[in-house]
Amino acid sequence: MRYKVAVAGASGYAGGEALRLLLAHPQVEIGALTAGSNAGERLGALQPHLLPLADRVLEETTVEVLSGHDVVILGLPHGQSAAIAQALGEETIVIDCGADFRLTDAETWTEFYGGEHAGSWPYGLPELPGQRDQLRGARRIAVPGCYPTVSTLTIAPALAAGLVQPDITVVAASGTSGAGKAAKPHLLGSETMGNASAYGVGGVHRHTPEIAQNLGRVHDGAVTVSFTPLLVPMSRGILATVSAPLAGDVSLEHAREAYDAAYGKEPYLHLLPEGQWPQTQAVLGSNAVHVQVAVDQRAGRLVAVGAMDNLAKGTAGAAVQCMNLALGLDETVGLSTIGLAP
Amino acid sequence: MRYKVAVAGASGYAGGEALRLLLAHPQVEIGALTAGSNAGERLGALQPHLLPLADRVLEETTVEVLSGHDVVILGLPHGQSAAIAQALGEETIVIDCGADFRLTDAETWTEFYGGEHAGSWPYGLPELPGQRDQLRGARRIAVPGCYPTVSTLTIAPALAAGLVQPDITVVAASGTSGAGKAAKPHLLGSETMGNASAYGVGGVHRHTPEIAQNLGRVHDGAVTVSFTPLLVPMSRGILATVSAPLAGDVSLEHAREAYDAAYGKEPYLHLLPEGQWPQTQAVLGSNAVHVQVAVDQRAGRLVAVGAMDNLAKGTAGAAVQCMNLALGLDETVGLSTIGLAP
Amino acid sequence: MRYKVAVAGASGYAGGEALRLLLAHPQVEIGALTAGSNAGERLGALQPHLLPLADRVLEETTVEVLSGHDVVILGLPHGQSAAIAQALGEETIVIDCGADFRLTDAETWTEFYGGEHAGSWPYGLPELPGQRDQLRGARRIAVPGCYPTVSTLTIAPALAAGLVQPDITVVAASGTSGAGKAAKPHLLGSETMGNASAYGVGGVHRHTPEIAQNLGRVHDGAVTVSFTPLLVPMSRGILATVSAPLAGDVSLEHAREAYDAAYGKEPYLHLLPEGQWPQTQAVLGSNAVHVQVAVDQRAGRLVAVGAMDNLAKGTAGAAVQCMNLALGLDETVGLSTIGLAP
Amino acid sequence: MRYKVAVAGASGYAGGEALRLLLAHPQVEIGALTAGSNAGERLGALQPHLLPLADRVLEETTVEVLSGHDVVILGLPHGQSAAIAQALGEETIVIDCGADFRLTDAETWTEFYGGEHAGSWPYGLPELPGQRDQLRGARRIAVPGCYPTVSTLTIAPALAAGLVQPDITVVAASGTSGAGKAAKPHLLGSETMGNASAYGVGGVHRHTPEIAQNLGRVHDGAVTVSFTPLLVPMSRGILATVSAPLAGDVSLEHAREAYDAAYGKEPYLHLLPEGQWPQTQAVLGSNAVHVQVAVDQRAGRLVAVGAMDNLAKGTAGAAVQCMNLALGLDETVGLSTIGLAP
Repeated sequence: MRYKVAVAGASGYAGGEALRLLLAHPQVEIGALTAGSNAGERLGALQPHLLPLADRVLEETTVEVLSGHDVVILGLPHGQSAAIAQALGEETIVIDCGADFRLTDAETWTEFYGGEHAGSWPYGLPELPGQRDQLRGARRIAVPGCYPTVSTLTIAPALAAGLVQPDITVVAASGTSGAGKAAKPHLLGSETMGNASAYGVGGVHRHTPEIAQNLGRVHDGAVTVSFTPLLVPMSRGILATVSAPLAGDVSLEHAREAYDAAYGKEPYLHLLPEGQWPQTQAVLGSNAVHVQVAVDQRAGRLVAVGAMDNLAKGTAGAAVQCMNLALGLDETVGLSTIGLAP
Repeated sequence: MRYKVAVAGASGYAGGEALRLLLAHPQVEIGALTAGSNAGERLGALQPHLLPLADRVLEETTVEVLSGHDVVILGLPHGQSAAIAQALGEETIVIDCGADFRLTDAETWTEFYGGEHAGSWPYGLPELPGQRDQLRGARRIAVPGCYPTVSTLTIAPALAAGLVQPDITVVAASGTSGAGKAAKPHLLGSETMGNASAYGVGGVHRHTPEIAQNLGRVHDGAVTVSFTPLLVPMSRGILATVSAPLAGDVSLEHAREAYDAAYGKEPYLHLLPEGQWPQTQAVLGSNAVHVQVAVDQRAGRLVAVGAMDNLAKGTAGAAVQCMNLALGLDETVGLSTIGLAP
Repeated sequence: MRYKVAVAGASGYAGGEALRLLLAHPQVEIGALTAGSNAGERLGALQPHLLPLADRVLEETTVEVLSGHDVVILGLPHGQSAAIAQALGEETIVIDCGADFRLTDAETWTEFYGGEHAGSWPYGLPELPGQRDQLRGARRIAVPGCYPTVSTLTIAPALAAGLVQPDITVVAASGTSGAGKAAKPHLLGSETMGNASAYGVGGVHRHTPEIAQNLGRVHDGAVTVSFTPLLVPMSRGILATVSAPLAGDVSLEHAREAYDAAYGKEPYLHLLPEGQWPQTQAVLGSNAVHVQVAVDQRAGRLVAVGAMDNLAKGTAGAAVQCMNLALGLDETVGLSTIGLAP
Repeated sequence: MRYKVAVAGASGYAGGEALRLLLAHPQVEIGALTAGSNAGERLGALQPHLLPLADRVLEETTVEVLSGHDVVILGLPHGQSAAIAQALGEETIVIDCGADFRLTDAETWTEFYGGEHAGSWPYGLPELPGQRDQLRGARRIAVPGCYPTVSTLTIAPALAAGLVQPDITVVAASGTSGAGKAAKPHLLGSETMGNASAYGVGGVHRHTPEIAQNLGRVHDGAVTVSFTPLLVPMSRGILATVSAPLAGDVSLEHAREAYDAAYGKEPYLHLLPEGQWPQTQAVLGSNAVHVQVAVDQRAGRLVAVGAMDNLAKGTAGAAVQCMNLALGLDETVGLSTIGLAP
């Protein structure tokens, strides 16, 4: 049995990565490929790395084109998903890589994104406690933001185990592909190579409430999140440093046990051996998240670091993982824990 | 049927890439992993991207350890392969990623490498005319150098078709991984980022005679090669610009026909559509070579450009492709034409 | 005595680099700063590295604003310089970093740039034989293109000395800043990091006839130029590999003597000691060009490699050097041979 | 009057950057240049960017060679400075870029560096309250570590003004040059390009107590510091994100006032206008530190970000700034606030 999967936004980075993964998926047939302003172009001109699809021509992103697929993966600008999803009907599984359906709280949505809240869909982070069951057989799935995925997974075991206070500080260094393929001056190679910069500092980045929402799932009571995103000179990858004040007497052994327990059966979460720290190169192209934890007794903080590919597990890998769950397949089909390095 | 494959030099870049590819190969079981000074270490500490093999411990590179495998892939420093290959015997297929057995002419070998010529093995470039048959069922294979592979494949169709004079100029820009993992000051990140440099200029680079040897296979008579390697700020990939004086009246159409004819049935050689030029990002992690050709009437030269992953098709991908041929498998098993981008 | 210098196009890379150099020039007072769409913005928001000018506000690029300066440096899109220069009158020295006035042959100009030829100005490459005198006291100067400067200077001594045939092959690897600050998808960090690509291959790049024009100044008779530009992952710098067939019996000694003779009294041209090859990192921010030469007897070619900062000596440094000559100052005032490395 | 300045460790990054700055210093004559294993080599072979010194030959690092200078700048491995400084005597100003004399507390020194504490020298951070006076006329100066300089300057105004609690979290992303020029596998270009990694996490990095020592100068009572260094793919620059819990009701206005007051008269500390965030590219080669601050009311934290060149203001620029103070010169002679970008 092969499922027919369409990708809307196939000329962008999320769409391209989805296609890279779907090409390696043994139970998928790639259906319609759509784009906005790039409709009518050969995919090979825009995504030359996807050689087997080079001669496919991009179609307009319309309901007609996307109909009749088992699964539609949406890699669209914010705000475009709701109408398409509604028109497609329940016979099609819709997996949205955009932000429209991630937040459950309408007020928070409006505060951070503006406009009216479109609602929320099952949240595509199966590693969150209880979440995997909601994704099995789901017809609509909201793929998490890349920063929220790695930030959440890096600190959740410590918070869930009560090792830290719910006062979380995240500083996450990201490659440029997280900002998408739309041409903006500050994202030029000349501006990003040899350059590290901060942006969206002080709690204003839209991923801040999403991290808080996730961590609220593993902690009773309010969780505060201070989130600072950095742009560093690489195309792919996020390295998140997440720390919080210790809640009482916590040893490194306690901390490692908590992570071992939380990650033990997860196919993509990997606690590194003591002494080895995460690096993004090790997870490029893979669905794995590498995490390491330290307990700084002098400063009274637990510090965890996680590395993830923002386009793979951070976006398109999560979409495929969720698609597998939605289709009732083994969660890991077509996904790898092997990175491309160096 | 699964074949047991050992990798000697598993802590280096060629060995690591071989393992990445072998992990995705459906008919391979990974056997012994050996190293030099890193013997005794966990592979996960040295190649953290190969998560499924993280807990494998590297053994010493000895004949005993490497015996009993169907295939042994050698990623060793020059000069170490001959003794091991001899001791292993014909029951084991030996595929050498080093230079020892690439050159057929002993005098040339001594001139460029020093010391005595160990002999030559079937040369692992199946796309060279007549070469594929020599590799089917071979028990010993010399994997080509990365520069020679991309340089040869980029200009061979034009030379073979008599479109250019046998007076070839190659300027090839390579990422740093081609220089290996041994720590040398000029290969430090601080020295290579934001920096382009030339080295081995003037025909002294050891890959020069190998390119000439290959091109001699498609042209009757002497072929001269001017080869200039450049180091540019990226980890992977080679972009080769290869040009030669036109031999008479040659149009772009002639040139494209020659490449189409030569590449048409090759699974990994891809002539890009007119107007699109190769980029290394499109072939990272893949076994594909992307080529484009131009005819500069004003300058009287044909100029072709080829992009290749130096570690994949340039080394370990070629090793796996040749292994498939040697084992009688489909040549493309476990290899991909899909790159990792951006 | 301080000269008042205006910069038109102060928000771009050429303009920004001109300002960086002018800030260090002891006989310059910085006058008007103008821009196109960025007029009205603080310079600090666009060029945060120019801290002393952070609070200067960009004005519109008009003749009124640019009038009354001793020197106006134009860093404008092609086609905008002629009208401004004419309106400014001879009392102002106009130095154009654009292409409008570089080519002397109207037909060639039209073929490569389209539209009508605006004429030609004294060409700002004082190191070309006889050229320095034309620049002393000049009121209009056309700054050379970056590729032509490094390509010309790298091979001119060999061609002038009759060591090579006038059949020149240039492959030049450039950082992304040469393509300017206008946001285009293929220049994004995600597209340029970890990527080497070719463009404008086959003699179609506009710098091709400019190189030929320059080399025609040192050789009697036609010079053919095959020029291939590459984009490599760095912001600044060009590394040009320039080769040509040997004209007779040429030794490395001959070649080095020719370069020594040509470069000996030049403040910015530096032939590296034997065995040392150019790297762009060594010239970043500097006005120096580092060159090395090899004679490949086997291939019958002389191969020279030159490294230059495309924004400094390749654009704004040349503008300042020419400004000094035009003003009757020491040619080297405010310019350095010291690079920023690593 | 020109002062004769020697540089010990002239083949390394700190030494090279010191020479770059000293070449631009109008009151300095460059004296002896020494090295360890590179003694006897031409400087041009090791530091090709320092063209005016290319033919200088490196001498052995001995007291004899370093004697007779007005100033000696030491860029030596840890542990070598004490003996040399003692032997040189008080007639020579000794400025140590190493760590030996930075920490005042012997026990802390032994805990983090091992071995016996050599003592402490005036600490070369003139921007610390009261510190400038200690540096004027000093004969011995310990140049701060690069991470401590940017971390301290980024948060000190907020802590000194009582806006935050003394519970500081630092995550600082550094280029690779901070790790020096000794060849180590994890610092290879292939390992650092396209890669972000963490190291020395959990309070074990040696710069942790130095940051705490500095911040103890602006706060009565204990200061805890959680410090996480990251390695990101660039040669130069540090971007430090420093945050702390708010101490009561703090507005952004309060915060900006505190930074304005602290930085107002400082030549190298620059609070960016609201809305503009620091980037390392803007300070490369310069002695400036760019800082921005945000108040995150939701998370209850003040977050400040600082950008600095680790080799310039972070090491060699600080050395020259301190040298100026020690010699009684204007503090800013030979130093710039202009960066090299893009």
